Formats: sequence, structure tokens, C-alpha cells
Amino acid sequence: MSYNKTANITAETINPRVKMFNYEPCGEIARHAERLQEELNKNPGSRPFQEIIYCNLGNPQALGQRPITFFREVLSLCDNPALLHRDEAHLLFSQCAMKRARKIIEAMPGRDSGPYTPSQGIKSLRESVADGIAGRDGYPSRPQDIFLTDGASSAINLTMQILIRSEEDAFLCPLPEYPLYSGSILLHGGTMVPYNLSEDGDWGLEIFEVKRCLEEARISGLTVRAMVVINPGNPTGQVLSVTNQEEIVEFCRKEGLVILADEVYQDNVYVEDKKFNSFKKVARSLGYNEDDISIVSYHSVSMGYYGECGRRGGYMEICGFGEDVMGEICKVASLTLCPNIGGQILTSLVMDTPKIGDDCFEKFLAEKESIHSSLVKRAKTLEKAFSSLEGVTCNRIEGAIYLFPKIHLPAAAIKAAKTEGVSPDIFYACRLLNDAGIAVVPGSGFHQVRLILSVKENQCGWEIAYSTFSSDC
Amino acid sequence: MSYNKTANITAETINPRVKMFNYEPCGEIARHAERLQEELNKNPGSRPFQEIIYCNLGNPQALGQRPITFFREVLSLCDNPALLHRDEAHLLFSQCAMKRARKIIEAMPGRDSGPYTPSQGIKSLRESVADGIAGRDGYPSRPQDIFLTDGASSAINLTMQILIRSEEDAFLCPLPEYPLYSGSILLHGGTMVPYNLSEDGDWGLEIFEVKRCLEEARISGLTVRAMVVINPGNPTGQVLSVTNQEEIVEFCRKEGLVILADEVYQDNVYVEDKKFNSFKKVARSLGYNEDDISIVSYHSVSMGYYGECGRRGGYMEICGFGEDVMGEICKVASLTLCPNIGGQILTSLVMDTPKIGDDCFEKFLAEKESIHSSLVKRAKTLEKAFSSLEGVTCNRIEGAIYLFPKIHLPAAAIKAAKTEGVSPDIFYACRLLNDAGIAVVPGSGFHQVRLILSVKENQCGWEIAYSTFSSDC
Repeated sequence: MSYNKTANITAETINPRVKMFNYEPCGEIARHAERLQEELNKNPGSRPFQEIIYCNLGNPQALGQRPITFFREVLSLCDNPALLHRDEAHLLFSQCAMKRARKIIEAMPGRDSGPYTPSQGIKSLRESVADGIAGRDGYPSRPQDIFLTDGASSAINLTMQILIRSEEDAFLCPLPEYPLYSGSILLHGGTMVPYNLSEDGDWGLEIFEVKRCLEEARISGLTVRAMVVINPGNPTGQVLSVTNQEEIVEFCRKEGLVILADEVYQDNVYVEDKKFNSFKKVARSLGYNEDDISIVSYHSVSMGYYGECGRRGGYMEICGFGEDVMGEICKVASLTLCPNIGGQILTSLVMDTPKIGDDCFEKFLAEKESIHSSLVKRAKTLEKAFSSLEGVTCNRIEGAIYLFPKIHLPAAAIKAAKTEGVSPDIFYACRLLNDAGIAVVPGSGFHQVRLILSVKENQCGWEIAYSTFSSDC
Repeated sequence: MSYNKTANITAETINPRVKMFNYEPCGEIARHAERLQEELNKNPGSRPFQEIIYCNLGNPQALGQRPITFFREVLSLCDNPALLHRDEAHLLFSQCAMKRARKIIEAMPGRDSGPYTPSQGIKSLRESVADGIAGRDGYPSRPQDIFLTDGASSAINLTMQILIRSEEDAFLCPLPEYPLYSGSILLHGGTMVPYNLSEDGDWGLEIFEVKRCLEEARISGLTVRAMVVINPGNPTGQVLSVTNQEEIVEFCRKEGLVILADEVYQDNVYVEDKKFNSFKKVARSLGYNEDDISIVSYHSVSMGYYGECGRRGGYMEICGFGEDVMGEICKVASLTLCPNIGGQILTSLVMDTPKIGDDCFEKFLAEKESIHSSLVKRAKTLEKAFSSLEGVTCNRIEGAIYLFPKIHLPAAAIKAAKTEGVSPDIFYACRLLNDAGIAVVPGSGFHQVRLILSVKENQCGWEIAYSTFSSDC
């Protein structure tokens, strides 16, 4: 590919921050997998597998998870509201979906899904989301605190854009980490302060470890503005206990840190002894309101039993920022005019699902439970499979859609990796892709190997994956 | 509203760049209009009008423009591909739409519209866009140069994020300017170098003026990286002549500037003696390829006869950047995973519309021509109305969906504005909103008044609006 040498737009002449981060779930392994798939399409017999199983990214419907009919029907009707006036539509759509679509369309500016919406999202849809949050938590939620967004990732990027003033502004982030956080923090010019999750403690969060990291960061001159908590965990799959969450709330309140609560896996919990609790609920139950602690909660339509990644829908609920800041966030959001309308609608549906008595309730519930059972089954199957393999250990999977096993490679494999000039985890992930057609993310993509390298080398233990649950399990 | 004083997230403690810009089309006048509308909803008789006419933003369907049936049918089917297997669907959808939806779905990963797509957009849809560009221009276009995006504004923000290293990196932008550019440049830490469009020359672009601005910028130590050209013009409505475009290409080639070509109004041209030519076509027709000049072209599904603002769809075609940069752009795009699927599909439809022989072609063409005639009629009506008003002058509207009249206010009005402590254009725009329910953007929102204040004050002339075409005309 040629380029214009006078204008000279090369990797050496662009924003240097762009080159500083990697986002491995969409990185080299993913690109290699795409090349392999193209090769397979051309020569179907060229490998011992027919197609790539993409476990490198939480992308449920790409692995066979079916969409919820009610959601798709409402989206379909809102895309083409003319259908709502056609008798034949009753042959193809449930009453329930038509009723909901009509309600959504009637509350829209211009009574159609075509125009720009307010940058914060359509008010009636934000009201549905706020009501859904209030119903879930048992504490009030206000539509003016909700920003509808193009998925949680857009919301996280927007938050970083707002909060980061210089590289002295820092954020406590879990390690192993979902690299969207380090990527976004670096891109917007801030600093990430990692705190270690305890692999030996089922990826739990130990508050003395977080405190140690905070203190070290402060001594080195950083202003720590917020603590990122991903619950259920990505890529580690743990669900925090309420006690643990209470400790975090007390800690952040005392230290004046915002809690950035990534709660996109709230509908992905697989164990009887744990349930999802939002950080806002935990804070309110301790008697703290927005005067006491600032919390931003992120949610998305991409995960859960909905799994609608391509729609790009989500919200953030912001409690405890100054009102002037809410205006500034609106202004930055308005630079991309508004979140996409399909994502806005779907976010409202996920937070306001069919109720008992609605004609589609039984079907909705059956589909939801079927997906949930399948997720539970796959989680258990994969956890069991990993645990039965020689040289592989894996924590219990409690939530989210990932496993993060530890794979003890033999010395010969580590030597072979060295000969190829790559780290053993990348070596293993490439072999898994080339020989079995399974794309996973090497542990170093989550900054796990790099930071505990010395310990792990002695044990010949390497973090390898996250493996999302394939439908084949 | 209360907030947590310990975490102390206020307008004084956030990213200072956020506070540096204003985006007036979604700014104070828009907020005031929303408050007025709420007041009207509560007390319908409280003002001499029933509802606000929002002319502050190019938002065609909010002003009564109807959507194209084919586009909505395909979106509706792709949202709910189960419909493609139902016989009754033929009662509600054209053959043409079903055929297209089937083709789109079959080329999608997982054969459904649910999963994340590649960050650059689905390959088959990028192929449709590239073919559409090639058909429009008569020169080749390659899918690997196309990024599908959540509208043009996301693409522009992404470009600035990539190109800006420090505040020494500067961008030539037209004045009056669509403030998305200054906003995005400031937010990402760069510098805007304005060049004046010539109001006396029908908002034409004089290359000696651009050259003067470039030289001044260079003398002051700035590295000018690119020239932004909006054609047809926003907010000024002119269509550049080919000769003018050729001058711009020659100038940017010689000076090593990237052309950032905002071409979102390519289907909004209203005069017989002008037609839209893309900058890429003009460059290729001069014999220049991507070795000679770098061009980024932005397009969107929001304007034209389609007007689908809320869908957030668009593309950028990047020619003449290094291949390594394309990878870095992909990486930044992957931080928000992928553009929304509805926007991607719609972008492919806009660039690959029904053809003669398709069963829906006649209907599609009739709808398209009806919208276009209505836009032409409204442009002429509004232009004529402005020109017939005492103290108002207005250039010929050739394209886009805005007029930018000059309003000569009487000395008493200017004095009244002074008494209220606002500039005369804001004073006028507020009166227009309060007394007639019409929301427009004061000229200062496009940085027009501020920069030519001294000249205009002597004349008692103030730039007031841009007025989008209301359906009421």
C-alpha cells in the first residue's frame, strides 16, 4: 500500500498515545484468526477444523446464543413504524411487542425513530431505565442521572475523557485487567494504577492490596481519581461478595475516590451462593447517598441473556457528580450528536422486560431461562474440562462469560517459545489457533504474565486464555 | 443537585479542554427551546405558538421529512431475520427489501445481526460502500480503505484523536464553521486555524486567503496537518465549483496537507449549474493518486434524501495514509468494539440503492424525488422570504440544508441587547424563539460575529442563524 510522503501520515507521526496501548481481544490473535478463516474459506480441507471458534471476545451470539424474540420484534417494529398500522403485522409480531413499540414510538420526538435524539438519550427511554434500576435495587434512580450510550465502552471512554486532566490523574484498575481500561486511560493521557486480584482467593479483591497500591500511587505524586471494579469480573469470572463490596464502598468513600462500577455482567451469575448487587445498592444500604460517595455504573445490552453486542446500546448512571459536570458530559456527548436509536431502545427493553400477564411473557421467560441454563451448563462443562486436564488449574467460574485458567507448560514448550522469540502464552495461544481453530487471548493481553513473570517462570505456569463459552460445549 | 464533596468532581476539576469549546447547535438555545416545549406541554395556550420548530440542527426527519420505505424495510428485516423465513412477510415487505436483507444477513458473521462486527465494519458492507463510491466517481475504491462509523461525527473525532500530537498540530477550517470541528480539535488538544469564506463571493473559498492563513500559522510555529473543507457547505450552503476544488487539491498537494473532506451533503444540491464532485474524484481527474495527496472523505446516513440521523451510520474513506496508520486507526476504533450494526447496514443501502428492474425501484425513485423536490422548494422559499425582508440579506442556497442570512438590526435593538448583556445575535435568536417558537443558532455559534465584529458593528449587521428548512415552508 502506497501513501503520500509529503503529508507523511505514518505511525511515527501520529498521536504517540495511540501506539502506547494494546487491545488484545481485537488484536494480533484476532487478526490471525481472520486470516485463517479466509484461508479455510478458500481451501476448506486445509486444516483439521472447518471454522474458527472465536473465544477471544465476549460475543455470545457469534457463538450460537440466540436472540430474545421480544427484543428483536420491538426493534423491527420501531425501525419501520408503518408496520404498526398494518393488520397483517399481527401475523408476524406479538401483541406485546406491538404494544411496546407503539409506546416507544409515541414518546419519541417526531413520533418516528429517524431524528437525532437528545445527546443524553430519549427521556422516556431513560425513565424506563431508571425505573428498571430502582426495581432491581430497591432504591430510587432518576432519569436525569442516566446517559444512554453506544454500549458500555463508549461510556467508559467518555468518562475518561471527562476525568483525565493530565498523566498525574490515575485510576485504580484490577489485574488481570480488561484492557479497554488501560487502553482508554492511556489514550486520554492518564495513568493506570493496577491492583492485583488474588488468584489463590478465587480472584477476590483484597482491600489491603488496593490500599497499598493507592498509597504507592500517592507517594509517587499521582492523583488517584477513581477505582474501577468489574463485577462480575472480566476476564476472571468472579462475583464479589456483599461484604467485599461494602469494604470497597467504605474505602472509596473514605479516600474520596469515585467508584467506576463495570456491571455489564449483572445478568451472568451462575452460582447459587452468590448474587449480583450493584455498588449503588450496597452504598445506599450502608446509608450513603450521593453526598457521601460518587458512583458511576455501566451497563450494556451486549452481555447477559440478551447478548446483543452489535447493537451498541448501554447506559451509565452517574450519582454524585456536580450538576455543572453533567452539563459538560452532555456537551462532550453532543460532539457525536446522540447514541444510536436502536441501542437506546434495546437498553430500555433490557431494563423493562415483559411482565406476568403480557401475552409474550411465557415465551420471553422460557427463552431467557433456556439461555441462562445453557450458560450455566457451559460454564460448568468448561470449568470441569480445564480442571481435569493435566497441568491446568482453573478457578471456579461464578459469573461473566470467561474463564482464566493457568496452564503449566513443560520446559520444552517454554524453550520452543523462546526459540520462536515469543512468550510461552502467545506460543500456546498460536498453537491452539493453528492446530485446533480456537482463538483465545494470551494472558499477557490482560497484563497478567508481564507483572508476575518472575514468580510464574519458576513454576512453569503461564496465564493463557480467556475462553468464552462456545455453543459447542 | 447534591454531589460528593470528597471526590470533588466539579467543572473546576475535570479535563479543562472540555470547558474550552462550545457546540451551539446543541447548546444554550437548544436547551432553552426544550424548556419552552415542556412549558407548552403543561400549558398549551401559554405562548402564541403550539410547538417549537427546531431549526438549530440539521435533523430532517424532525422537521417532517419522511423516511425511504426500502431503507426501513431492510433495517426492520435485518433486526429480526426470523421474518425472512415467514410466508406472511411478503404481505408486509417488498421482494426487493427481502432479497437485500437476505443478502446482507447471509454475509454476516453468525448469519445474524447480533454479534460484534470487525471494528472497521462488516467486510461485505464495506464492499458495497466501495462499489458505490466507485460508481459515483468513476474511479476505483477499495473496501480496505473504508471505515464504517457511527455517523460522520464519530469519524471526525477519531481522525482528530489519531492526527493530533500536541497543540502545535493545527487544522485549517472554514469560517463560519460547523463547530463540531473546533470542538473536536480543542478536545483532542490541537489548534484550529480558521480561514474565511467570502460572504460577498457566495461563501466561496479563496485560495489566497487559505494560503495567507497557512503561512501565518507556520510563522507562529504551528504544524498544519490538514485542511477541512465542507462541501456542500455547513452552515453556509454553497457548492464548490470544480475549478475551486482543483485549486484546493493543487494547494494541499503542494503544501503536504491532508484534505479532510466533509461530504455529508453530497445528495443535497439544489441548483442546475452546480453538481457534487468528491475531492477524490477531482484529485484523480487531475492525475493524482494516493502517492500524491492524502484525502479522507466523510459521509453519513443523516443528511441527503435519507435523513436518518438517529441511526448513526456513516463511513470514512481514507486514501494516502501509511498502512501502519490504518492498523492504529483500527485499534482506536476497537476501543468502542464496533460501529452499530443498523448504521452499518443503512450506510451500505445509501451507497447501493435499488436499481432499475428491482420491484421497489419505482417507489424508491418516487420517494427520493419527492423529498428532493420538497428540499429544493423549501430552499427557494426560504431564500426568497429572507431576501424580501427589510434589513435581511441572504446568499443563494446551492446545497446542504442551511441558510446563513445577515440581519441588519436597528440601533435600538442593539442597545436593548447591550442592556440585557448579550450580543445582538443572541438577543435576536432568543426573541425569535420566545415570540415565534423558532429555534435557530446565533451566528456567533459559528464563530462568525466574534471574528468580524468590528466591521459588522459599523454596519449594524449581525449574522443570525442557520435556519434549517422546516417542513412548514
